[in-house]
Amino acid sequence: MTPHVASQKNVYRFIAGKADGHGAMKDLLGGKGAGLAEMTAAGLPVPPGFTITTAVCHRYYAAGNQLPADVWEESCAALREVEAAVGKTFGDATNPLLVSVRSGAKFSMPGMMDTVLNLGLNHTTAQGLIQQTNNERFARDAHRRFIQMFGRIVLGVPGERFDHALETLKAERGIRQDIELTAADLQQLVAQFEAIVERETGNPFPYDPYEQLRLAICAVFNSWYGKRAVDYRRLNKIPDDLGTAVNVVAMVFGNMGDDSGTGVAFTRNPSTGEPVLFGEYLPNAQGEDVVAGIRTPQKLEALRETMPDVYAQFCEVAARLERHYRDAQDLEFTIERGKLWMLQTRNAKRTGAAAVKIAVDLVQEGIISPEEAVLRVEPNHLDQLLHPMVDPKADITLLGKGLPASPGAAAGAVVFDPDVAEKRAQSGERVILVRAETSPEDFHGMVAAQGILTARGGLTSHAAVVARGMGKPCIAGCGELILDATGMRLGGQTLAEGDFITLDGTTGRILLGDVPLVSPEIGAEFETFMRWVDDARKMRVRTNADTPHDARVARSFGAEGIGLCRTEHMFFEGERIDSVRQMIMVSGTYQRLIAALDKVAGDLERLRGDAQKVSALEAERAALEAELETPARLFRGALEALLPMQRADFVGIFEAMDGFPVTIRLLDPPLHEFLPHTDEEIAALAAKLNLSVQDVQSRVAALREHNPMLGHRGCRLGIAYPEITEMQVRAIFEAAVEVARRGITVLPEVMIPLVGDVNELRAQEAIVRRVADEVQQAAGVMIPYLVGTMIELPRAALTADKIATVAEFFSFGTNDLTQTTFGFSRDDAGTFLPMYVERKILADDPFQVLDREGVGELLRIGTQKGRAARPTLKVGICGEHGGEPSSVAFCHELGFDYVSCSPYRVPIARLAAAQAALRQPRA
Amino acid sequence: MTPHVASQKNVYRFIAGKADGHGAMKDLLGGKGAGLAEMTAAGLPVPPGFTITTAVCHRYYAAGNQLPADVWEESCAALREVEAAVGKTFGDATNPLLVSVRSGAKFSMPGMMDTVLNLGLNHTTAQGLIQQTNNERFARDAHRRFIQMFGRIVLGVPGERFDHALETLKAERGIRQDIELTAADLQQLVAQFEAIVERETGNPFPYDPYEQLRLAICAVFNSWYGKRAVDYRRLNKIPDDLGTAVNVVAMVFGNMGDDSGTGVAFTRNPSTGEPVLFGEYLPNAQGEDVVAGIRTPQKLEALRETMPDVYAQFCEVAARLERHYRDAQDLEFTIERGKLWMLQTRNAKRTGAAAVKIAVDLVQEGIISPEEAVLRVEPNHLDQLLHPMVDPKADITLLGKGLPASPGAAAGAVVFDPDVAEKRAQSGERVILVRAETSPEDFHGMVAAQGILTARGGLTSHAAVVARGMGKPCIAGCGELILDATGMRLGGQTLAEGDFITLDGTTGRILLGDVPLVSPEIGAEFETFMRWVDDARKMRVRTNADTPHDARVARSFGAEGIGLCRTEHMFFEGERIDSVRQMIMVSGTYQRLIAALDKVAGDLERLRGDAQKVSALEAERAALEAELETPARLFRGALEALLPMQRADFVGIFEAMDGFPVTIRLLDPPLHEFLPHTDEEIAALAAKLNLSVQDVQSRVAALREHNPMLGHRGCRLGIAYPEITEMQVRAIFEAAVEVARRGITVLPEVMIPLVGDVNELRAQEAIVRRVADEVQQAAGVMIPYLVGTMIELPRAALTADKIATVAEFFSFGTNDLTQTTFGFSRDDAGTFLPMYVERKILADDPFQVLDREGVGELLRIGTQKGRAARPTLKVGICGEHGGEPSSVAFCHELGFDYVSCSPYRVPIARLAAAQAALRQPRA
Repeated sequence: MTPHVASQKNVYRFIAGKADGHGAMKDLLGGKGAGLAEMTAAGLPVPPGFTITTAVCHRYYAAGNQLPADVWEESCAALREVEAAVGKTFGDATNPLLVSVRSGAKFSMPGMMDTVLNLGLNHTTAQGLIQQTNNERFARDAHRRFIQMFGRIVLGVPGERFDHALETLKAERGIRQDIELTAADLQQLVAQFEAIVERETGNPFPYDPYEQLRLAICAVFNSWYGKRAVDYRRLNKIPDDLGTAVNVVAMVFGNMGDDSGTGVAFTRNPSTGEPVLFGEYLPNAQGEDVVAGIRTPQKLEALRETMPDVYAQFCEVAARLERHYRDAQDLEFTIERGKLWMLQTRNAKRTGAAAVKIAVDLVQEGIISPEEAVLRVEPNHLDQLLHPMVDPKADITLLGKGLPASPGAAAGAVVFDPDVAEKRAQSGERVILVRAETSPEDFHGMVAAQGILTARGGLTSHAAVVARGMGKPCIAGCGELILDATGMRLGGQTLAEGDFITLDGTTGRILLGDVPLVSPEIGAEFETFMRWVDDARKMRVRTNADTPHDARVARSFGAEGIGLCRTEHMFFEGERIDSVRQMIMVSGTYQRLIAALDKVAGDLERLRGDAQKVSALEAERAALEAELETPARLFRGALEALLPMQRADFVGIFEAMDGFPVTIRLLDPPLHEFLPHTDEEIAALAAKLNLSVQDVQSRVAALREHNPMLGHRGCRLGIAYPEITEMQVRAIFEAAVEVARRGITVLPEVMIPLVGDVNELRAQEAIVRRVADEVQQAAGVMIPYLVGTMIELPRAALTADKIATVAEFFSFGTNDLTQTTFGFSRDDAGTFLPMYVERKILADDPFQVLDREGVGELLRIGTQKGRAARPTLKVGICGEHGGEPSSVAFCHELGFDYVSCSPYRVPIARLAAAQAALRQPRA
Repeated sequence: MTPHVASQKNVYRFIAGKADGHGAMKDLLGGKGAGLAEMTAAGLPVPPGFTITTAVCHRYYAAGNQLPADVWEESCAALREVEAAVGKTFGDATNPLLVSVRSGAKFSMPGMMDTVLNLGLNHTTAQGLIQQTNNERFARDAHRRFIQMFGRIVLGVPGERFDHALETLKAERGIRQDIELTAADLQQLVAQFEAIVERETGNPFPYDPYEQLRLAICAVFNSWYGKRAVDYRRLNKIPDDLGTAVNVVAMVFGNMGDDSGTGVAFTRNPSTGEPVLFGEYLPNAQGEDVVAGIRTPQKLEALRETMPDVYAQFCEVAARLERHYRDAQDLEFTIERGKLWMLQTRNAKRTGAAAVKIAVDLVQEGIISPEEAVLRVEPNHLDQLLHPMVDPKADITLLGKGLPASPGAAAGAVVFDPDVAEKRAQSGERVILVRAETSPEDFHGMVAAQGILTARGGLTSHAAVVARGMGKPCIAGCGELILDATGMRLGGQTLAEGDFITLDGTTGRILLGDVPLVSPEIGAEFETFMRWVDDARKMRVRTNADTPHDARVARSFGAEGIGLCRTEHMFFEGERIDSVRQMIMVSGTYQRLIAALDKVAGDLERLRGDAQKVSALEAERAALEAELETPARLFRGALEALLPMQRADFVGIFEAMDGFPVTIRLLDPPLHEFLPHTDEEIAALAAKLNLSVQDVQSRVAALREHNPMLGHRGCRLGIAYPEITEMQVRAIFEAAVEVARRGITVLPEVMIPLVGDVNELRAQEAIVRRVADEVQQAAGVMIPYLVGTMIELPRAALTADKIATVAEFFSFGTNDLTQTTFGFSRDDAGTFLPMYVERKILADDPFQVLDREGVGELLRIGTQKGRAARPTLKVGICGEHGGEPSSVAFCHELGFDYVSCSPYRVPIARLAAAQAALRQPRA
């Protein structure tokens, strides 16, 4: 025995309105024990009991797995008080007290540690239980379950032994369900189980209830170092030295006659938030009967008639609990012989709509403050308020499941080709685009479709990212989906073009036919709630939007600017792709000749004195210039053709974002993404551009890359082809000038992608500033603008101090940064990432939840170094994580100026930012 | 004028053995001025002159580009002393002093700033020069050159004006070479040039030598802010405020008759290091005549007969210079009328062999210490001592150039197929393997070949890495090389299988035919030198070796263990690839069934009470087990077949490395690298494994990845297929036990690749320790071993504190770390990296020279965090950088325990480590 605990209290009682402990003592009493003390002290009718502290757990182990004598004495004394409170006696032959013995650590470890119910039963007290309940079958069943549970958990008898005896008896009786066993059958099982225990342990089953109690307490302490619990703690990083408490609580029974019963209730409607008591009740029944669904429960109101006093007490208790816990509660209760016992209360689970209404109502009822209300709604729950859902009452036929890549529901005719999708949609049909996976070439089909289903790709695949940006449902990576020439096969069904399916993008379910949907209603409470949200948050919330339409949608959801406007999608629209492809076809030759001319010019400079060499070089220069003529005309011509189209895109976006900043990212993907890949498409392109098939093929082959993610893309393109950067910047500033003249406030922020070294940024910044100056000077209109970069490579974060000497803003591109920091290809990680998450190698998919340890460390380093070099540096995030609540919280902690996410996640990000600010106020 | 310089000396003289300054005053006098002062003070016959300080440069700019009056006065006074020293007078009509005016900053900025020679010439002094030299043509030519140079540099006349007049005159005369112009022609040019200057500037050419001097001094100061110089400083990070000094030095002429002459000499033979004076001499000539090669110079010894006193003086000067500068010197001298003038001395360039011999000789002569000797040899120069070279005397026909991917030279018959290479080599032929690019399947052909040539791929391509590891020459990425069915085309030649070529891997040259090679001789000096090297260094040097042969070679070069033994090459050898492919073919099914069984087992555990569900699950389990039978047999069978072969590999390597540690990396590449890709190969494999072609195709397709670099590889394989890890670990420890029993000391270090999270390492470590224990227990032999990881992902470095709780060693895999930190794919970066280096966006190719700012920062973070968590952590590097001198120095600075590199770079790494230790001693 360790001396330091001699003066400490070992046992904390919660009996009849008095509790030794309270809700904040989780370290000593564990979570469950602290909760029981809290409820008891609040005057609620809780079954009495006591908690043996976690400090005893340490003494137990220090003493070589022995329960200290003083603890046992205190426990027995507390048990006396419990007996007095319930009017039953432990081990009594006529009116026995039964107890449950449960573990309870500081942190919840569901299912990891052991529980024994109905402790105190033996052949004597079982008779008493029959008398109490007037239900022999119940008592016999409780007895055999107790032996089984105690045998397995406390005495270590393999569970299969009992299972085998049970199955054998059922086979003998010719029955399939346990419920068909009679009281006599169960009595026989009690005897068999006792025999099993004696055979397996060499000792008879302990008859003495006190011996049972002592053994059960020891078993709970022992289970703290059980394999399951140790594994669980290691995975969840819970320290081993916390220890567990033991809770001993009187059992109460709702099946002791018509003055008994059991029920569950919510203090407010969990679907709508309506402030009325809402629940079900079953007279003369135990909790498990409600769960088993054998008898149909009555509405809670029925209790008003049969037991008006109890009902009134319950209403009062419910109201008191709601005020005590300051939130809507989910209650479990039992009435034993006219006495109400509260078995559990916890904050009620609720829909998003209910969450908002309850939070707002609680404020208006004066129970919580607006700040607390903001903390009461799960950010992700807002998703339900923004998207249609499958009608919960509809009959459905499930075809299969995929990844829930973009939330909401949609129904439509399946089409397998983006052009067909567009055509059918134009004639007013609802369509669902079904593809193996999507690429930027499918964009117009995705625009036309109600929803998207793909066989391959993960939550950050092209289909998923684009669909979320458009707020359309998408189910990705449905591995069972088979696509062939005739259509699609899934869940044993074959569907042809035009057949209807319904997608539930929130859950990933694919349903057969045109299932009815329900639209969410956004009430006045939502407006009120979001006003409190915006009052609380410190970070700005922007959106990722590539089109005027998306920009307007995002603004209606409260976006305060665009954090990422990708320009590459624009390259695919309509006839532009032809110009883009023409440019790419000649780009190689063009670049080679420009480089050769540069070299000749350098040589000419160097060799100015040597007339002979000069004339040879001049001849070479002339030849190169002649050779360059056609490629240059085609290359620059293509860019000139693109310029007005790009400009028009930006005009629309600037109009939609009047007064808010718009971050435009220059061209990012590798050029080969714009080229066709199949032989047919290549032949068509060759014909269109008047080139040989072989020429097109060889250019396609030359641009192919082993690892395109790490290839010739981002600013590497703009450095190789400064003309592309020039064209894009010209389009931005010409558009800005045009709308500024119309009185619209334009705040462009030009973002250079994939910078790894400050020299890359410097080279591109020079072009941006030069062209911006030219356009502004020519127009006589000055536009306030910033030049910055996406921080999406580890090296950019590590050298952020250098990069910030040039960049006026950083936008962390956490999608790519996650890829390079982990060395995970988003397109390929599907083969092992799910396994990693399942086996708890990683807690979350880092493409969904920002990895604080690794990627987050780079965000920290990058922000700190960047702001050290440039204190006014604007810092934001534009990866998918910008709309994920815990990632948004992390950005708040790092002091970011803004987050940017897809339009439909803007309200979620606003809420997450507000919660982060309330939880961790910034200096 | 700024007051603070009033008391400062503006002009530092170096005249007749006396100098105001000395060699350490580079800040004030510039590099050149300090050197001239040093030589003069050392008593060497240097043409007299003076240096105007860099402080004056600041005063010049502060005064609005005006030369301060006191500076001009001091300069004129110094010029008086120069006149006295050489016995000529500035501006004199009969014996004129001419001077050169040159810039000279603290750091050398070659060609960036301006120089004026022969200053002091006009029509009067030109007559004097004719008298002095007795060579009118020389004097006229000097005069027209002076006007041209002064006109362009000092007066800003466009150089083309002069060029045009010169070309016109040559055309009139019908001549092509300047040398054919007569004295009269040149006199005519002088007049024309003066007219050009007057026309362009509006003023006559300055006649007064003092005016010329003043203008030239100002021009040098002005050139400090010339565009070229500013650009150069920005690129080379030289501060603008250093300023330049101006050096005014008396001109001396070697063409003043038979008692004059000019020459160059080395104090020791720069090819062999032999300690004898070695040089060439041309009587009655100027330095430019030697360079022009019109007259054949004599050996230096000729001077001994014609001017024995001068020769003796020169020998004495050479010896004195060598002692003064404590290194072999490269000298330029001129004899003017029997007087010796030293124009330049600098440390002599030399071959690797000479460098070693000179360093050792200098120690033995008592001139330098062994530590200094170690610092005197460029590590990369040792390469020359280890590889054959193309005989410098051989006639060669250059076919083309590629990247010098692996040094040394080799000649052989070209073959285009690895099997053919193997067959021809077995019959005793020398062959060169020529491929578009190589893959692991070409390994046996590379083993058989003398050298490798590829059309694609960079310095870290498969071909390059493997060739360097084998010490064979390789030229990679030869873009002009065209391969087709008939053979290869290069440099206008078509070569068929069997035609001979010679590769010079050191320079990247591809030569036609069987060119003779010379083998380097390693002398006794090398042994002595490397002994000093090893005394000096603090880091261990290991090698990257995958075979016993490579291990032995590396050990002969001084390797102290293996830092990286890759096991995947072993998978390709002989018939093993069949077993590997069989394993891969069933791996998908095997893994799916194992996972399904795991799930069923989990469900059974969970649902133990529910008999109905249990029996359904048991039926499912039985079905899955039946289905698993064949795949399991094939999967495990393949691994069992591989086990003895892997074990034999390790036995050989452990034997070769007796007493030294061997780091073995478990399987790293994605499985698809082991599969065939062409239709033919797929059909062959299907036939071999008795599978349908479609099955093989679909498995190949399933394993294909978008970005294999970031795909399912490294420890992700070992986690998905723990059986592979088990087999490899068993092979390692069974081999270790076997050789340990024979008295060999085995120190295995098991390295888990591509770890990004400590949980990955933990999962694999558990397997390693379990299997290692099993094998050791079974054998009754204990093997000391370590388990560690390769740090090759940014996240691994960022979370090194966590990883080091499990890892006993870190080996930085800087190849992959460079890829992910920069987001550069090694296989694709060839399209833009050369451009980046050329345009100075990056100073070096980061795959060759470790990037200290980004990748290096991760090394620093990783080492610091790792050692904080585990002070005994062993830290090394095993990327290609482990053999690159500046990267090795960086590893020393970070306190690494060792570097590991390919066998042939071991001596280089040893030297680099020694130099780093001498330059920056560790605490």
